[in-house]
Amino acid sequence: MPDTAADNRLIIAANRGPVSHKRGEDGEIVAVRGGGGLVTALLGISAGRELTWIASAMTPEDAEVAAAAPGGEIDIDHDGHRLGLRYVVAEPDTYHRFYNVIANPLLWFIQHYLWNLPAAPELGAAELDAWENGYQAVNRLFAEAVSDKIGSRPSGRPLVMLHDYHLYTCPAMIRERHPEAFLHHFVHIPWPQSDAWRVLPGPMREAVFGGILANDIIGLHTGKYVRNFLDGCRELMGLEVDYGSGTVSVEGREVRVRAYPVSIDCGDFDRLAESKAVLAEERKLEEARRGRLILRVDRMDLSKNIVRGFEAYGLFLERHPEFREKVTFLALMQPSREDIPQYAEYRRRISAVVERVNSEHGGSSWQPIELRIQDNFPASVAAYKQYDVLMVNAVFDGMNLVAKEAGLVNSRDGVLILSENTGAHKELAGSAVSVNPFDLEDQARALHRALTMPEDEKKRLAGMLKDTVRSNDINRWIDRQFADIKSSMGGAR
Amino acid sequence: MPDTAADNRLIIAANRGPVSHKRGEDGEIVAVRGGGGLVTALLGISAGRELTWIASAMTPEDAEVAAAAPGGEIDIDHDGHRLGLRYVVAEPDTYHRFYNVIANPLLWFIQHYLWNLPAAPELGAAELDAWENGYQAVNRLFAEAVSDKIGSRPSGRPLVMLHDYHLYTCPAMIRERHPEAFLHHFVHIPWPQSDAWRVLPGPMREAVFGGILANDIIGLHTGKYVRNFLDGCRELMGLEVDYGSGTVSVEGREVRVRAYPVSIDCGDFDRLAESKAVLAEERKLEEARRGRLILRVDRMDLSKNIVRGFEAYGLFLERHPEFREKVTFLALMQPSREDIPQYAEYRRRISAVVERVNSEHGGSSWQPIELRIQDNFPASVAAYKQYDVLMVNAVFDGMNLVAKEAGLVNSRDGVLILSENTGAHKELAGSAVSVNPFDLEDQARALHRALTMPEDEKKRLAGMLKDTVRSNDINRWIDRQFADIKSSMGGAR
Repeated sequence: MPDTAADNRLIIAANRGPVSHKRGEDGEIVAVRGGGGLVTALLGISAGRELTWIASAMTPEDAEVAAAAPGGEIDIDHDGHRLGLRYVVAEPDTYHRFYNVIANPLLWFIQHYLWNLPAAPELGAAELDAWENGYQAVNRLFAEAVSDKIGSRPSGRPLVMLHDYHLYTCPAMIRERHPEAFLHHFVHIPWPQSDAWRVLPGPMREAVFGGILANDIIGLHTGKYVRNFLDGCRELMGLEVDYGSGTVSVEGREVRVRAYPVSIDCGDFDRLAESKAVLAEERKLEEARRGRLILRVDRMDLSKNIVRGFEAYGLFLERHPEFREKVTFLALMQPSREDIPQYAEYRRRISAVVERVNSEHGGSSWQPIELRIQDNFPASVAAYKQYDVLMVNAVFDGMNLVAKEAGLVNSRDGVLILSENTGAHKELAGSAVSVNPFDLEDQARALHRALTMPEDEKKRLAGMLKDTVRSNDINRWIDRQFADIKSSMGGAR
Repeated sequence: MPDTAADNRLIIAANRGPVSHKRGEDGEIVAVRGGGGLVTALLGISAGRELTWIASAMTPEDAEVAAAAPGGEIDIDHDGHRLGLRYVVAEPDTYHRFYNVIANPLLWFIQHYLWNLPAAPELGAAELDAWENGYQAVNRLFAEAVSDKIGSRPSGRPLVMLHDYHLYTCPAMIRERHPEAFLHHFVHIPWPQSDAWRVLPGPMREAVFGGILANDIIGLHTGKYVRNFLDGCRELMGLEVDYGSGTVSVEGREVRVRAYPVSIDCGDFDRLAESKAVLAEERKLEEARRGRLILRVDRMDLSKNIVRGFEAYGLFLERHPEFREKVTFLALMQPSREDIPQYAEYRRRISAVVERVNSEHGGSSWQPIELRIQDNFPASVAAYKQYDVLMVNAVFDGMNLVAKEAGLVNSRDGVLILSENTGAHKELAGSAVSVNPFDLEDQARALHRALTMPEDEKKRLAGMLKDTVRSNDINRWIDRQFADIKSSMGGAR
């Protein structure tokens, strides 16, 4: 029954691939693994299936390797997971418009409520062009690559899993060519309330919703995002939605919208925490350590609320001078999206506030904030183990995995300060000190509370945090999605 | 039955009163009527009741008159409506914190989605103090004034009608003292989706919702705002809401939430349009007229989208040079809230874009934009009559009465360009050219379409606009609210 059963293939489409290629010092092309647990997690789901991953070529070497591979597919062995990797190669101009004009900032800003609406965005010819000839063009390339892979053996019901806000319009393009495909889409960032989408011109808005609604299942992190999505379908698209069952009716199909809070690979993280690279970084940290350690680890993104975090810390030092010279705020910041003007500006604002707090409160013998702009994952994990307080005060954040990663491996009963506007807050509120990310006084109070919390309470919270993370490991995230896929595939025919 | 029937009294509580006092040139104190049809409308609702209006003293003379009046109540005759006026006199510092720190910008910005969240607001000690010793303090003064008036004759069931975002916490304070009072609250600005309220610290958010939920009826402009309000009660307050009947259950009470789209007094406007003052202004306008007239009339508020409007006009002139010297964009702008830094900055941005468009497209013989910063209502009404195109492109706007006022009295079959994010869009979309306020290309296209529209289509749209405004006159707004008040009062006991 080739038409009714799922076939054995799984196609993942995500902007970022499991590896990227660059030229080593000896001129040879080498594959470099990306950071973050998502890739490993996604590889974990292949579970006996024949897996193909379709990703954007990010480097000239990616494109070169793709061109040289037989059938355009590169064989990859990723910790024993075998998969085929296909690159979508867009022109640099096309990719720039897709990535630096539409996906970030336009969609990213909408979904995190980051636009300064009285002034921006100003959608003009450049943005409309970037939509058609950037975002839509790259989505079309992805759809063609998926279609090509499906078409190479047109039998059964292939499973395609799409990822994130880069690929909203791709599912409709795949659906058009392959009505039989089972399409699943996970969105890793918040799904905002419907008014946020009113920033987009009507045709774009309809393309986003119409595109993603071509999926069979749409996965989001939390029940709140699911509700926001359903509200948007009702209000912006005039579609019939069922809040109880989490479904949208579109052109005779039922689309299921489900919450799957993403998590981390706990086993992997446990091993990583004891790895040589991390232990070496940890020794450096211990040697340099001076008193208590407040930590934050973030991409330098406007959603992360880095500036207000430092301002709140300055306020804390002002209110509690007894902590001077006894605490250091270590900020490990990865550079991010520096081609986008708002990010360059944000980086300048971060430098300015660090300078101000350090000059107001520090001296020759003590720097209140130590800002390291780097991309060094072992150093981050070492710091995860060593923090006394972890600051996660995001303006809005889809999930925030730093809270889970760091909470899992921390060895000092460190206290998590967690923004109420993160997806993680739904799971972790009980084991954290919650803060309103706009309220500096609240964040300053939270720092004081975290630094003066009795040992037994710290132990209790830190233990609860670890338990919560372990009880919703990445494997559960995967299992729940596959259970729903299986039941949907079964139920649909 | 003094306890069960409504008594004959109506108390209106609104920050702005029907008149304000100042010292004339001869040193005498004179009462000056405020602009806008709302005051007249609210006076219209007294309908045989004994009316007391409680308002903030805005000038030293207001306070002086209040101090001199017997029992603190000033007798006013407002076009044959007799009423008592009581002023709430706050210390200037208190009022500043209430008005310039909390009501505007904090609440106003939240409700119109105007915050630039990556950077602002930064809620610190000043804002928390302004909340307690500004907003709450003034609300308490209002509650005391209302209570004083009710208490002067404690029988029956007095009707209190509160207005707008200045007085959210007042109803709970009145309810505490007068459980028997019937409290009605109309909010004249948008009610945003729940995430916008997450800017407020939890206790403030709960005071806002808890405060306004002490009313028996809450009135908003549109069904969308009603839904947003109910969503907020459910999500932020954990209350039980019934979307079908539009009710919230709070502490055993049922609060009704209803849409009453505000409108204008058509008869009043018809007369005004033929008044001497307006006719004189109209002659001046006709003499100076040069080709077609695009008009906007707005307070200089960040929500009005003045800068993007001019940029879109610049784009239109670039795309359609054939309109040079044949069209003028007349902008009548009332200064607004100049004590708030964001407003001063916005005014600078407006001047800059006007200068840029005029120098890029204009010359010695023609200024593409004529910007008049003034507060001259007859001149506005004269311009209402004379426009060929009216630009209402607000970012978000609760209703936008300019669209209704101007549409009613326009004599040239002028075309209304209307932002889809105004409350008025719900009623007027069919008789306007809709625009996305963030999309400059869309607004430039709309200007071209409006200026090249065939006469019969213009006539049809302008006629439909007038009919729509007349069919939902301010009297209907009043009648519908009083019908609901009557049915609620009857049903509640």
